Amino acid sequence: MENLKKKVTIKDIAREAGISPAAVSLILNNKPCRISDEKKKLVKEVARKKNYVVNQAAKSLATRKSQMLALILPDIENTFFSSLAKQIENRCRANGYSLIIASSDDSRENDRKLLRVLESRGVDGIFLILSMESLEDVKELLDELSLLTMPYVMIDRTLPGLGCARVSFDHEQGGYLAAEYLIKKGHRKIGCVYRDDKEGSGKNRLVGYMRALKKYGIPVREEYLKKGDYRMESGYLAAKALLSTDSTATFVCNDMMTLGFLRRLYEEGYKIPEDYSIVSYDDSLKNYLLGVELTTVVQDIRMLAEEACCLLFKRLCGEEDLMQSLILTPRLTVRGSVCERHDGAGMIGGKI
Amino acid sequence: MENLKKKVTIKDIAREAGISPAAVSLILNNKPCRISDEKKKLVKEVARKKNYVVNQAAKSLATRKSQMLALILPDIENTFFSSLAKQIENRCRANGYSLIIASSDDSRENDRKLLRVLESRGVDGIFLILSMESLEDVKELLDELSLLTMPYVMIDRTLPGLGCARVSFDHEQGGYLAAEYLIKKGHRKIGCVYRDDKEGSGKNRLVGYMRALKKYGIPVREEYLKKGDYRMESGYLAAKALLSTDSTATFVCNDMMTLGFLRRLYEEGYKIPEDYSIVSYDDSLKNYLLGVELTTVVQDIRMLAEEACCLLFKRLCGEEDLMQSLILTPRLTVRGSVCERHDGAGMIGGKI
Repeated sequence: MENLKKKVTIKDIAREAGISPAAVSLILNNKPCRISDEKKKLVKEVARKKNYVVNQAAKSLATRKSQMLALILPDIENTFFSSLAKQIENRCRANGYSLIIASSDDSRENDRKLLRVLESRGVDGIFLILSMESLEDVKELLDELSLLTMPYVMIDRTLPGLGCARVSFDHEQGGYLAAEYLIKKGHRKIGCVYRDDKEGSGKNRLVGYMRALKKYGIPVREEYLKKGDYRMESGYLAAKALLSTDSTATFVCNDMMTLGFLRRLYEEGYKIPEDYSIVSYDDSLKNYLLGVELTTVVQDIRMLAEEACCLLFKRLCGEEDLMQSLILTPRLTVRGSVCERHDGAGMIGGKI
Repeated sequence: MENLKKKVTIKDIAREAGISPAAVSLILNNKPCRISDEKKKLVKEVARKKNYVVNQAAKSLATRKSQMLALILPDIENTFFSSLAKQIENRCRANGYSLIIASSDDSRENDRKLLRVLESRGVDGIFLILSMESLEDVKELLDELSLLTMPYVMIDRTLPGLGCARVSFDHEQGGYLAAEYLIKKGHRKIGCVYRDDKEGSGKNRLVGYMRALKKYGIPVREEYLKKGDYRMESGYLAAKALLSTDSTATFVCNDMMTLGFLRRLYEEGYKIPEDYSIVSYDDSLKNYLLGVELTTVVQDIRMLAEEACCLLFKRLCGEEDLMQSLILTPRLTVRGSVCERHDGAGMIGGKI
């Protein structure tokens, strides 16, 4: 089999059909022209026979439309992002767009490089989920983004005050919901395993947890706060530390850390929820865990994809609400990983 | 913030630098030309200041090189494929290529459409994992592939006799390893939950299982064979059926079905391996399961990515071993989900 055949050009078709290349171009691009229908049909047949592909690289120079959108994401292996990618892809396809996906591997340099590469390949618009590096220091990237010639929408990892279209979840509210639920179940000694980022979901989930404690008059105790990095190992280590305190429950800020946390509980012979209560975040584990039904904060990935696509499609049609910012609210799904306690130290303030 | 700024062109730079657009083009493309270094520096500074992006769509018309590769995969949410994508991406980046990923959603029509779209955007080469639909009836797609003007490598889902570069695993051998291990542990009543495809991994893993039974003189019994579709629910249903037989162990042909199988065992109060033995396939669950250490057939995704990249990079350099076909051997990783039995019906034939 010959895999490197020469590309068929308009000239080849013109030669075979016996008309000028310019006329072939008009016909294949369905432009108005004074050419007989018979001749038009012949040209299209020759093109089909020769498997002629309109060179979109050339065509996009003229029309500036590729019907292709791009999604830049931080990590293709992270199930949250791959699920989101699938949801976005479905919506793009249903609207006549192809979607291509590129991963930054959580590097700022790659964010910048990919933006340039994708722009130069003529994609019509971009869905952008920032790398952690870009999120921690977004100024440089914003300069880059302000020069983009196509519309883009920022998803999930965004900052307040950004002057661009964006959709994200309210992480602070998620943290609040998790901690409040534990408090309402009677827990007072509540741990939190969080990611220590400057601006991302980690910080905001912790802030929500603290707000709930404050509202119900429970002091925040340093010994109950453990840093993690959203990976399993850090959850395992945090569990080791928290099980040596008198905590009765913990809010673990993402599912990967919860997996590590659960492993430690399992190794030490703790039963859930009888011996220890947990609230997690993400709801990505429900098919995997046997014998543990996690109460968890849920972010609706379908809704995130839906709103992001809606925003970008609108902008591609030239609608001018360029700066629209949507913040979606997570919800709490109650299952069986929290037990009720009646030995709380009683209310210091607030009410339940 | 102005998001839809006009693209900076060579003409804009020429005007500001006070030289001809042709000269600017020579300079920015680093072509040899008789222009003073001072002027060259000025032009590059102006271009940088104005954030000029070389239009790769235009450039690729001339050079036919985009330094971009594409990966077409069946399902971005499937962890096997997303892990593979990440491994391929790392290797592309290390070799100076950008990788874009597109999903066919397991549809033959999308395979064809994506091939055309990606070719027309000027990618330099393609990694292709076929959709199930294409795999079941590959002829049409092969015609399409034979007309591609860039090199491609087929990964994972391939057919014997395909005249193209390809890398895949030996599924038959995987099935054999799984069943043989159970036999060597003394099991004689061994179930198999397999996918009933015509040509894919499912059929071949079943064939391997049968070969092992045959070698050790154990008759294949219909009641021990259960069809699934690689999804969890089908594993759950298969477990229900197999637990009503006198089987003592089952080879479940992928991890998702094993999850369903385990759930049923858990619900019925079976302990693993004391009450029932399992061998799975994929090794994607080891971080998720608490209290079950799965013995499993492992396919080395790193090696698959490594070999696929190696093949495509070679072909991009013009090496002519176009038809090379690599078949990688899976291995068995023994953990704790199989118990030894000494009540086997004894050897009918073969030896252990």
